[in-house]
Amino acid sequence: MASTASPFSLSLSAKQTTSSAPQKPHNNYSYVCFPRFQNPKFDLNRSWVSLAGASRGVRSRICASSAQVVDRSATKTDSGVPTIVEVDLGDRSYPIYIGSGLLDQPELLQRHVKGKRVLVVTNTTVAPLYLDKVIDALTTGNPNVSVESVILPDGERYKDMDTLMKVFDKAIESRLDRRCTFVALGGGVIGDMCGFAAASFLRGVNFIQIPTTVMAQVDSSVGGKTGINHHLGKNLIGAFYQPQCVLVDTDTLSTLPDRELASGLAEVIKYGLIRDAEFFEWQEKNIHALMARDPDALAYAIKRSCENKAEVVSLDEKESGLRATLNLGHTFGHAIETGFGYGQWLHGEAVAAGMVMAVDMSHRLGWIDDSIVKRVHNILEQAKLPTAPPNIMTVDMFKSVMAVDKKVADGLLRLILLKGPLGNCVFTGDYDRKALDETLHAFSQS
Amino acid sequence: MASTASPFSLSLSAKQTTSSAPQKPHNNYSYVCFPRFQNPKFDLNRSWVSLAGASRGVRSRICASSAQVVDRSATKTDSGVPTIVEVDLGDRSYPIYIGSGLLDQPELLQRHVKGKRVLVVTNTTVAPLYLDKVIDALTTGNPNVSVESVILPDGERYKDMDTLMKVFDKAIESRLDRRCTFVALGGGVIGDMCGFAAASFLRGVNFIQIPTTVMAQVDSSVGGKTGINHHLGKNLIGAFYQPQCVLVDTDTLSTLPDRELASGLAEVIKYGLIRDAEFFEWQEKNIHALMARDPDALAYAIKRSCENKAEVVSLDEKESGLRATLNLGHTFGHAIETGFGYGQWLHGEAVAAGMVMAVDMSHRLGWIDDSIVKRVHNILEQAKLPTAPPNIMTVDMFKSVMAVDKKVADGLLRLILLKGPLGNCVFTGDYDRKALDETLHAFSQS
Repeated sequence: MASTASPFSLSLSAKQTTSSAPQKPHNNYSYVCFPRFQNPKFDLNRSWVSLAGASRGVRSRICASSAQVVDRSATKTDSGVPTIVEVDLGDRSYPIYIGSGLLDQPELLQRHVKGKRVLVVTNTTVAPLYLDKVIDALTTGNPNVSVESVILPDGERYKDMDTLMKVFDKAIESRLDRRCTFVALGGGVIGDMCGFAAASFLRGVNFIQIPTTVMAQVDSSVGGKTGINHHLGKNLIGAFYQPQCVLVDTDTLSTLPDRELASGLAEVIKYGLIRDAEFFEWQEKNIHALMARDPDALAYAIKRSCENKAEVVSLDEKESGLRATLNLGHTFGHAIETGFGYGQWLHGEAVAAGMVMAVDMSHRLGWIDDSIVKRVHNILEQAKLPTAPPNIMTVDMFKSVMAVDKKVADGLLRLILLKGPLGNCVFTGDYDRKALDETLHAFSQS
Repeated sequence: MASTASPFSLSLSAKQTTSSAPQKPHNNYSYVCFPRFQNPKFDLNRSWVSLAGASRGVRSRICASSAQVVDRSATKTDSGVPTIVEVDLGDRSYPIYIGSGLLDQPELLQRHVKGKRVLVVTNTTVAPLYLDKVIDALTTGNPNVSVESVILPDGERYKDMDTLMKVFDKAIESRLDRRCTFVALGGGVIGDMCGFAAASFLRGVNFIQIPTTVMAQVDSSVGGKTGINHHLGKNLIGAFYQPQCVLVDTDTLSTLPDRELASGLAEVIKYGLIRDAEFFEWQEKNIHALMARDPDALAYAIKRSCENKAEVVSLDEKESGLRATLNLGHTFGHAIETGFGYGQWLHGEAVAAGMVMAVDMSHRLGWIDDSIVKRVHNILEQAKLPTAPPNIMTVDMFKSVMAVDKKVADGLLRLILLKGPLGNCVFTGDYDRKALDETLHAFSQS
């Protein structure tokens, strides 16, 4: 996957790994280093967050693009010059490298490996494609490092304690010590499991993520949420644990199945809906380029998604409130995944249907107008994502799974709902129960 | 277990829960707010820590006794007025309450419960003795709180993933949410498992410890180490996770079996050896009072042990180096526990034999003189603790388990060894391998 001059490399000079990257002039349509939401009203007691309003100037280390946000795919990226999104979490800060051919740059990965022992955690699908390449990247010019690997079965249904134990077994049998590094090579399931294993092995070892799906690149690679599923619910057991770095080699997307690509785009679309209207508008114009895997369009979507998530996570690492807004559609979506059986639908597919339900409920509450409902349907359809849950889902199935959602607090289910113009949302338990019931009945069997 | 005026309540006025506690005059033989070690030379690159030397004045929130350190049992404690040892870890700081009758003071526990839902994790031995009492303490005058409990099988052999899953199952089936509180009621195994469950359930919920053994009161209740065993080694899977508070009701020791009491004293003795010579001397004079369960002697030993551990943990929460010194005898001891089978010997029994081996090796290296070797043997014998590993242990059994010890770094086994006058130790990989071999051959079959 070839790519040339980067439209995303601006304002990143201090972070660039080569000095030859082109510097574009700033223009007047800029989001440089301003958070995309303005005046966050953040009241934990009331359990909601409004992202509407206007307080500017909160500077973060997440440097957004200084170039135009539309027609992104018309510009080309420099091969091998990574864009860097810095996730600012104090002494747990880390860089996300995004670009083409990054796995061919051993020094990028090796600078974040601590100790002499590495365990690569991957799965049966990704291992034949990229394991050798990653081992080369870890060991080229670095003969003192020894690399072990554990290859797990592929799929959300294996994101459980039994499979996690295989990682511990391998680490312990290989006599890895506290100075080792775990590397997650794969999608979100591998990232979540490897991250939780790294958090728990000897009470915490170094951790690097190499996400190979859009979903993992735009979502699970940012923010340190790790964990496994319980048969009664998703991600109920885990840890907040930050990696040393995330390396997104966009070349790995060339082998991604279409359905996986679309699943990842569901999360990309989410960022636009909850906090970045311009990004959503860019997506509407570029959805065909994204579906056609235009490398620059994908790289831009990944970068801007990571920036959005990194901004939110920097402000609320442990999900006291604001971070919960990243879960638009996820409460309904988790119910679909749990009720339908893990692995029947991809995560992003369930989230897409869940977002439609959240948007429907927001509309029933009178919080958004018709046009937003239609635009959400349109973009999801163009991305070939579902806009309703599977027929098998019943109201009771939704309710029973939603009752154990992590966002329930003292028995009250809080939801992320859109409110106001495009790009604004709330996280709240303060809504009319009738609207929730109507949405559940409109989208599932009684 | 009645007790009267406290000799340990000095310098704690800001923390006392009643204003009527007596204030003793300071005397000249005082350790108030000075760490017991002096001039810690702390060089991570060299992987050792020397506690010898003299740099004073590091002030901590851990307030040591201002009264004489000998003949402690001659003074009596005030019933119901807890001594408080504050573990200073920034925003993860917490108090340890120590005293008689504390479970009869509901307000002490309730002030640290967050949310309306509590899960008490205990075992089949402790539940019949104290579960009702703890539920009363949680709910008296507090009808909005609902308490669930899970009763695990008792013993180190159940400190595994299968048993841990029972805690998650109960929490999830009970639909506990992020605002719940987990309470560990029992010994070290319960504390470690409940703590790891609290760290991992929904990526972290509130956690309170009510340790009911001397071992748990002086060791596992301080410092946030949680975890479970793997069949290849102890505590290989876990998290650093701090409780909201620790409540040590010394009355619970009245039901502790003799062997468990002695096991806990092994850790008490360890604190004297690694960093507190005066405490060791106090123990030599009071070992019979401790074995006879004199309540004031026990309360003093618990308090001073907690202070020692809290000081070390405050300086090195994540065990970069200094904290490792708390593991005197534990590398040999873990090998005994693993090789002999978990649960054959109590943890403190294995540690006692392990300390004898570490002391023997220190002597072979020429780092300590004969008198320390003899005094260690004497006090352990008086505490009815083993002074050698079980006959079944072979040199190879030691070596194979020690190879996966968490203190191995890049293949080098680092050990805690005594060096210099009583009360001084080092954590080092820089020792003559011959001494280790000689010690292993002296204490086990070839």
